[in-house]
Amino acid sequence: MMNRIHDEMQGMTDRGAVADYIPELAQVSPAHFAMSVCTADGQSFHVGEAGVPFSIQSISKVFTLALALGRLGDQLWSRVGREPSGLAFNSMVQLEHERGIPRNPFINAGAIVVTDAILAGHAPREVLGEVLRFVRQAAGDDDIHINHRVAKSEQATGHRNMALAHFLRAHGNLRNAPDLTCGVYFHQCAIEMTTRQLAQAGRFLMGGLPAARLLSPARVRRINALMMTCGHYDGSGDFAYRVGLPGKSGVGGGILVIAPGRAAIAVWSPGLDAQGNSRLGTLAVERLAQAAGWSVFG
Amino acid sequence: MMNRIHDEMQGMTDRGAVADYIPELAQVSPAHFAMSVCTADGQSFHVGEAGVPFSIQSISKVFTLALALGRLGDQLWSRVGREPSGLAFNSMVQLEHERGIPRNPFINAGAIVVTDAILAGHAPREVLGEVLRFVRQAAGDDDIHINHRVAKSEQATGHRNMALAHFLRAHGNLRNAPDLTCGVYFHQCAIEMTTRQLAQAGRFLMGGLPAARLLSPARVRRINALMMTCGHYDGSGDFAYRVGLPGKSGVGGGILVIAPGRAAIAVWSPGLDAQGNSRLGTLAVERLAQAAGWSVFG
Amino acid sequence: MMNRIHDEMQGMTDRGAVADYIPELAQVSPAHFAMSVCTADGQSFHVGEAGVPFSIQSISKVFTLALALGRLGDQLWSRVGREPSGLAFNSMVQLEHERGIPRNPFINAGAIVVTDAILAGHAPREVLGEVLRFVRQAAGDDDIHINHRVAKSEQATGHRNMALAHFLRAHGNLRNAPDLTCGVYFHQCAIEMTTRQLAQAGRFLMGGLPAARLLSPARVRRINALMMTCGHYDGSGDFAYRVGLPGKSGVGGGILVIAPGRAAIAVWSPGLDAQGNSRLGTLAVERLAQAAGWSVFG
Amino acid sequence: MMNRIHDEMQGMTDRGAVADYIPELAQVSPAHFAMSVCTADGQSFHVGEAGVPFSIQSISKVFTLALALGRLGDQLWSRVGREPSGLAFNSMVQLEHERGIPRNPFINAGAIVVTDAILAGHAPREVLGEVLRFVRQAAGDDDIHINHRVAKSEQATGHRNMALAHFLRAHGNLRNAPDLTCGVYFHQCAIEMTTRQLAQAGRFLMGGLPAARLLSPARVRRINALMMTCGHYDGSGDFAYRVGLPGKSGVGGGILVIAPGRAAIAVWSPGLDAQGNSRLGTLAVERLAQAAGWSVFG
Repeated sequence: MMNRIHDEMQGMTDRGAVADYIPELAQVSPAHFAMSVCTADGQSFHVGEAGVPFSIQSISKVFTLALALGRLGDQLWSRVGREPSGLAFNSMVQLEHERGIPRNPFINAGAIVVTDAILAGHAPREVLGEVLRFVRQAAGDDDIHINHRVAKSEQATGHRNMALAHFLRAHGNLRNAPDLTCGVYFHQCAIEMTTRQLAQAGRFLMGGLPAARLLSPARVRRINALMMTCGHYDGSGDFAYRVGLPGKSGVGGGILVIAPGRAAIAVWSPGLDAQGNSRLGTLAVERLAQAAGWSVFG
Repeated sequence: MMNRIHDEMQGMTDRGAVADYIPELAQVSPAHFAMSVCTADGQSFHVGEAGVPFSIQSISKVFTLALALGRLGDQLWSRVGREPSGLAFNSMVQLEHERGIPRNPFINAGAIVVTDAILAGHAPREVLGEVLRFVRQAAGDDDIHINHRVAKSEQATGHRNMALAHFLRAHGNLRNAPDLTCGVYFHQCAIEMTTRQLAQAGRFLMGGLPAARLLSPARVRRINALMMTCGHYDGSGDFAYRVGLPGKSGVGGGILVIAPGRAAIAVWSPGLDAQGNSRLGTLAVERLAQAAGWSVFG
Repeated sequence: MMNRIHDEMQGMTDRGAVADYIPELAQVSPAHFAMSVCTADGQSFHVGEAGVPFSIQSISKVFTLALALGRLGDQLWSRVGREPSGLAFNSMVQLEHERGIPRNPFINAGAIVVTDAILAGHAPREVLGEVLRFVRQAAGDDDIHINHRVAKSEQATGHRNMALAHFLRAHGNLRNAPDLTCGVYFHQCAIEMTTRQLAQAGRFLMGGLPAARLLSPARVRRINALMMTCGHYDGSGDFAYRVGLPGKSGVGGGILVIAPGRAAIAVWSPGLDAQGNSRLGTLAVERLAQAAGWSVFG
Repeated sequence: MMNRIHDEMQGMTDRGAVADYIPELAQVSPAHFAMSVCTADGQSFHVGEAGVPFSIQSISKVFTLALALGRLGDQLWSRVGREPSGLAFNSMVQLEHERGIPRNPFINAGAIVVTDAILAGHAPREVLGEVLRFVRQAAGDDDIHINHRVAKSEQATGHRNMALAHFLRAHGNLRNAPDLTCGVYFHQCAIEMTTRQLAQAGRFLMGGLPAARLLSPARVRRINALMMTCGHYDGSGDFAYRVGLPGKSGVGGGILVIAPGRAAIAVWSPGLDAQGNSRLGTLAVERLAQAAGWSVFG
């Protein structure tokens, strides 16, 4: 089944446009494709370039959210909401309207608040180390690194995120200096992983695996709920409608998708649709979920 | 389990505020509570006033959407979107910004477009008859009626919905005269059902029941996806986070909740929270879903 | 000087686009041009087709505002603001944000409230008669009429204004039935005048003419202030910047401009710019004001 | 007349609230009052504490705009608009909606763009010197300085302005580093002047004074037009309505008002109204303009 989907993807010509706001992402070829699946019974399946690392970008928000919930618990929700935003992923309108409380932890403003909550006065280098340790532990693989060239590029061009951070600070919802929090944020987005590593790292969100537990079952369910309603920016409703599974996308073209109790899926294809989500990646998991009967909606 | 939840709800003092925009809803006591469950194996369970009819209001949007999808298929999506709105349920801002295409079929503007699509030049009375037949057939119960006093009251005070209809018409997204479409809409919202009837009527969304099929399994999954991301206005993310099941609420205090493959649940308690969803109803299904392990998120 | 400006306008090719939302306006040729000036010393000057009537449209809002202020005084300001809107002329966003109080009496929502305030339970026909009497008295000319074909067309296509009226009603800021108030509004917009008549009708806003006084000097100053800050929709700042005089435009291509203490000016050219204001009309009064040294800004 | 107004202001109890976002402004007593008038015939009149310096804050935007127009001419308008904003003075909504082009040079975002245009790669210290020279020359008084404590405080708390600057930069409408441009901006706002100095510095906007000309008459008219439509944030329409003169306010409680061809007026009272404009200052110039018959509106 995965091989058939892989073949179908190879034949696709409308692959969307590669993110072009930093040179490191713009240079990636839209021809890449990889998909990895880790099932609840411990098996793994891979097609395409499952050993080629890519920039996970916003998928990192899932790991920092898990870290923050583990450390702070529900008090995190006083600083960030749990509702879909209904607006483009970097909108400041909503933020202004709601006095500095981002709608959810997966829009940029919300993710910056989550990173700020983890930072909490510690040294950025130390906190980044902790994020990396969490991801490596979840993946069971120590060969996961930050691409510092990507991080530097994001830092040089990330004026919109810096604007969000200053704006959050003006509303009293940022505890650290904007350039420190954004520094950590730009680096976490620059983590590189293969689909193999990403699917493995996603297993703790499947539930039901005592060994892989990094988070309580209740928190796992809640992260999945957030990925379902908010995981694909302003395309979240469409992803739920087509795929029927919680997922989180990144502008590097990766998507982490969870079939609760059944599988963790990672897919990568760098071409994006108008909402900034991987076009072929979405299509591939839509077909996989349908063929496997994994939709949570019956 | 349901009896325990019923008892817990009886003890609750913070029941929210009853909708007060028409006298017929304002007069309903916040003390009412009922919950009914129809399981996939054909059993039914009821607690509280499961035989007392209440105004289903926006829950009717689920039935008209099913009707419209059955009749028009996916071409309906050229007139209404599938994304959460991120704004109050009757907002005109989004509608103006997006040139007359409502974000989804569960906000008022979207539901008015769906009703307009069913109306399609037919006589309002005839179309209302069809909606009622659909609901009765789904419930397997012919004793379901429209409360005409409620419909008249809504008509007299429904200026915001009339504004939406005229606005949709100005954008070319309403085919019938605003007062005709709104006339049908006000009457569909005034359908009265008991939780017993509503849970039965929701069985076709459980999936897997050949006898109860009013809609293809693919369409069932998609309606569930829409209920998950958009079914509770600006509280949809929170409902997904807490309950982990697709549902649709109405300002009459009812909620229809689907546990795919397992159960259809109807709950009623007239007091509403700040987002316009039943406060105790949400709490009751949260506890039920948790106790039964029905969350779709693992 | 006026003849020179007339000649210059004849040579202009970029005349903008004629309003096309109703057939009666769409059929008007963009080649028309007329300008009339009534000076404080009682003289009149005319160039172009100063005897051809055109649809005054939103310029009527100046006359209904004068009527309403004369009748209700400052209590009108509890229902409508005095600030520029900073948004397109028919926006519902602002209205929703500010709970049904339109920003000023010259955007459509504000003008509908003003008309509603004059209507005040009287028969529409009667109130329209009063508006017409006011305009005729101001112009000193009884040959001013409503074009009922234009009014009917606006009524048939005026869904956006009907939406505004229902929305105002939903917020408790409309006292009469939406179709009654809009009926009067559509008819007042359909008044036809020549530039000769319009310039004469504008003399009461010049100030300093005891005979022409229909309003106290304080109210005259205030209407001029409102025309300066809000008279040209989202092009008001630009008109103030370029012309330096208060004015009110209509989508029929007319503009009424006041040089306080000096002159009342009417100009007509049907082609509109992107903000819905007469392109050549604006240019003509800009040149007239500059040549005559009439800018209020020094 | 000025003495009478001074006396009336002394008796006022509802003086509004002093700006409190930095300690230096919060410590100023609301009891201060001063008004100075320079007339076209070269006379000066002063009441109250006309020799006490106060922070001119946003009034500095008039001087940097004059400088920028003198240096860049109309090409400045490709980077900033000329329309009232219709929103709170520090709104990012409008900016996002209009892709980084601020509505006008008097909202914060627009003033930051103007300062950025003057900075143009020069050293901040050098450009600040030039702004100060311009103000001193206009006032004919070299004893005008920047309060560096105020500037430092604004820098420490100015996250909203930093957010605006980064946002402008993200849209390609800021040429210098955000902290450099904001550095100059915070210092220009921290210029201190007495009403005597400010009224003198405003004479070049009166027009008709060859000796005082720092700007062409056409540009003077246009700055006045902008002050009329945009000079008081979201209270601009109200100021035009009540006072009938162009003016620019600052949160330090000062207002510079121009009676074209007649007078330059400076008023100071630190208590602000809900729109951030001096409450008693507005009232004082309203009474002065009315008594002197200086309204430009007749």
